Amino acid sequence: MDALQLTGESAWALWQKVRSEAPLIQCITNFVSMDFMANTLLAAGASPAMAHCRDEVQDFQKIASALLVNVGTLSPEWTDGMRLAAEAAIALGKPWVLDPVGAGATPFRTQTIVSLVNLRPTVIRGNASEIMAVAGAAGKTKGVDSTAEPSHALEYAKQLAKDLGCIVAISGATDLVTDGERVAKVSNGVPLLTKITAAGCSVTALITAFVCCAPSDPLLATAHALAVFGVAAEVENVRGPASLRVELLDNLYSMDKATLTSNVNLQWD
Amino acid sequence: MDALQLTGESAWALWQKVRSEAPLIQCITNFVSMDFMANTLLAAGASPAMAHCRDEVQDFQKIASALLVNVGTLSPEWTDGMRLAAEAAIALGKPWVLDPVGAGATPFRTQTIVSLVNLRPTVIRGNASEIMAVAGAAGKTKGVDSTAEPSHALEYAKQLAKDLGCIVAISGATDLVTDGERVAKVSNGVPLLTKITAAGCSVTALITAFVCCAPSDPLLATAHALAVFGVAAEVENVRGPASLRVELLDNLYSMDKATLTSNVNLQWD
Amino acid sequence: MDALQLTGESAWALWQKVRSEAPLIQCITNFVSMDFMANTLLAAGASPAMAHCRDEVQDFQKIASALLVNVGTLSPEWTDGMRLAAEAAIALGKPWVLDPVGAGATPFRTQTIVSLVNLRPTVIRGNASEIMAVAGAAGKTKGVDSTAEPSHALEYAKQLAKDLGCIVAISGATDLVTDGERVAKVSNGVPLLTKITAAGCSVTALITAFVCCAPSDPLLATAHALAVFGVAAEVENVRGPASLRVELLDNLYSMDKATLTSNVNLQWD
Repeated sequence: MDALQLTGESAWALWQKVRSEAPLIQCITNFVSMDFMANTLLAAGASPAMAHCRDEVQDFQKIASALLVNVGTLSPEWTDGMRLAAEAAIALGKPWVLDPVGAGATPFRTQTIVSLVNLRPTVIRGNASEIMAVAGAAGKTKGVDSTAEPSHALEYAKQLAKDLGCIVAISGATDLVTDGERVAKVSNGVPLLTKITAAGCSVTALITAFVCCAPSDPLLATAHALAVFGVAAEVENVRGPASLRVELLDNLYSMDKATLTSNVNLQWD
Repeated sequence: MDALQLTGESAWALWQKVRSEAPLIQCITNFVSMDFMANTLLAAGASPAMAHCRDEVQDFQKIASALLVNVGTLSPEWTDGMRLAAEAAIALGKPWVLDPVGAGATPFRTQTIVSLVNLRPTVIRGNASEIMAVAGAAGKTKGVDSTAEPSHALEYAKQLAKDLGCIVAISGATDLVTDGERVAKVSNGVPLLTKITAAGCSVTALITAFVCCAPSDPLLATAHALAVFGVAAEVENVRGPASLRVELLDNLYSMDKATLTSNVNLQWD
Repeated sequence: MDALQLTGESAWALWQKVRSEAPLIQCITNFVSMDFMANTLLAAGASPAMAHCRDEVQDFQKIASALLVNVGTLSPEWTDGMRLAAEAAIALGKPWVLDPVGAGATPFRTQTIVSLVNLRPTVIRGNASEIMAVAGAAGKTKGVDSTAEPSHALEYAKQLAKDLGCIVAISGATDLVTDGERVAKVSNGVPLLTKITAAGCSVTALITAFVCCAPSDPLLATAHALAVFGVAAEVENVRGPASLRVELLDNLYSMDKATLTSNVNLQWD
């Protein structure tokens, strides 16, 4: 595969690699998202393995290609498994991606997320509030500000990316992806996605699969995954969120090159 | 908003309040129901937060507007979180709603439910057997009687409502909602709903959102939520339960006033 | 009901028994599968009860008709419940079925599965790798060989079935079901099923319901359940895996005798 570029052609090429390699993605995720996340990975061509227990997460990373950690329905019993799995991924040189669900909502949650962030994920994806909370809780801001402008969140994301040497993605009407210097903008998807639970969780899992197949360029791999998921959700005349969820998964399974490349909306900021 | 009445107009007005306020409903619920429950709340206009852990349930209640507790896949680890969350809701003056899934099935389950009932929920919703078991386990009957007449269950529900100062809803072909004196009847929904797992769990979550937006009249708010969910399920020529689930969620998202008010079937007993 | 035979007529007769008796199946299963499994059982006419906690699994077996144990998202807290429930099923003379998800993937998982296998399930269902790992971990082979021929897996399955006195089912393009001597082949289903998470988990739950209604012939009951699920998945012109999942459940609810018997593909090997 050629070096990635911020184009639909490149997104397609990477997706085809995911489909042909079918990487095994170990997911430690919340209870709400498990079904939809596993089906998202399967539809898009990757292979999910949900395993969270401290007694086997390290062994599982040996056979997996990457790790997704999502802290949605957090508890101390699960935190151990998340940390051990992330350490195993790092030791084995495999990418791992963090979804800091609800960062800032409670002290327990924020502290747990900070301890995971300090293990230096390859990619962090959240909404503007969550990314600001992650940055703030790490000592760089005063806390969550859900009324902040996207551009305000972006500065925190850039600083976080620089400090950790990772990629930070902010989801929104337009997604922003940064390595601390460059910023890629992804303007795909539809507002109705916010009415489907775990849509954000699932796209983070898809990011994990894409990054896993393009380890040398996690910024563009993240942008490509966001674009693919977004285009799959751009369904006309859909009746409501449950129909959209069905069509989104079907589209991830069946989408062809022309549909993807003619709808992808990717730009450098 | 005017005082609630037992009419479709009133149900619509309350639903519009839910949609405009989008209250954050903290849900401590069973694993089976999480996805469908969260999607039900989102489709209907509320905002779900699934968080169960004793380390954060109290902090979560501070930012939530109400609490739903469902004991479906019960374990002692979760019981602590349920109790702490309910106590926090009470201390903060927020409504909390209990779904006593499987009351009467095992001693462990029944005892846990009794300890939660003693914390005085704002609303309890279950089927006839569950409501009778809740009343019986609290010392008012001899136990579950799944062959009992609905009218028999109603007397237990009334007594329970009086003793606790709460609302009790009995689900069935016709739902009955009582505060111990008045009884509202809701004759919406379809038999096929019984073939969709967690349909009852999800309507209890919807009740929580409605009660949260009409705290001064939980009886009518409960009846309105049952009617809205029931009308959303009244789909003609549906192929089976999986199609019905998709259409139900789509309807909760898109239903207009005329459809609701022309189909609501609410009466005083 | 007459003695079962390896025919569509017999599969239909047993299914009608499941539908009329609506046996209560206690399921201790992974988080990913709970929603789809419960909906599969409901659609097909059985009644699911998800209860896993050591404090009530034995009491639950008293009111259930059979037990399904699936080790997908394993943890030590759940292992106790699985073991206690299986022991209760045995003591009460009720069938119990094991789905050894991921056998061979990690030592913790394989050891847990071996300890459950030693409790002698009525039926074990897995893919070729899992069945070989179960046989191997029990001391009969050198371990998982995911590149093995189906016929290679069959010999291990036969030996396992003989040693344990149970039924072993290997899922694949053609499912093989054996009691150690006879081998029934089920050639229903579609490749797209592999893109739906928990499809295998759900068919194992359906097997539990069928075996529960034909305790004297678990081999044929297992084959019949696999055929029913497979035929329900044989949908033409389906758009993708999410649509297939909806149609599969709808078909399990509504399928008639002519559709089943004209599509069943059952043979002795």
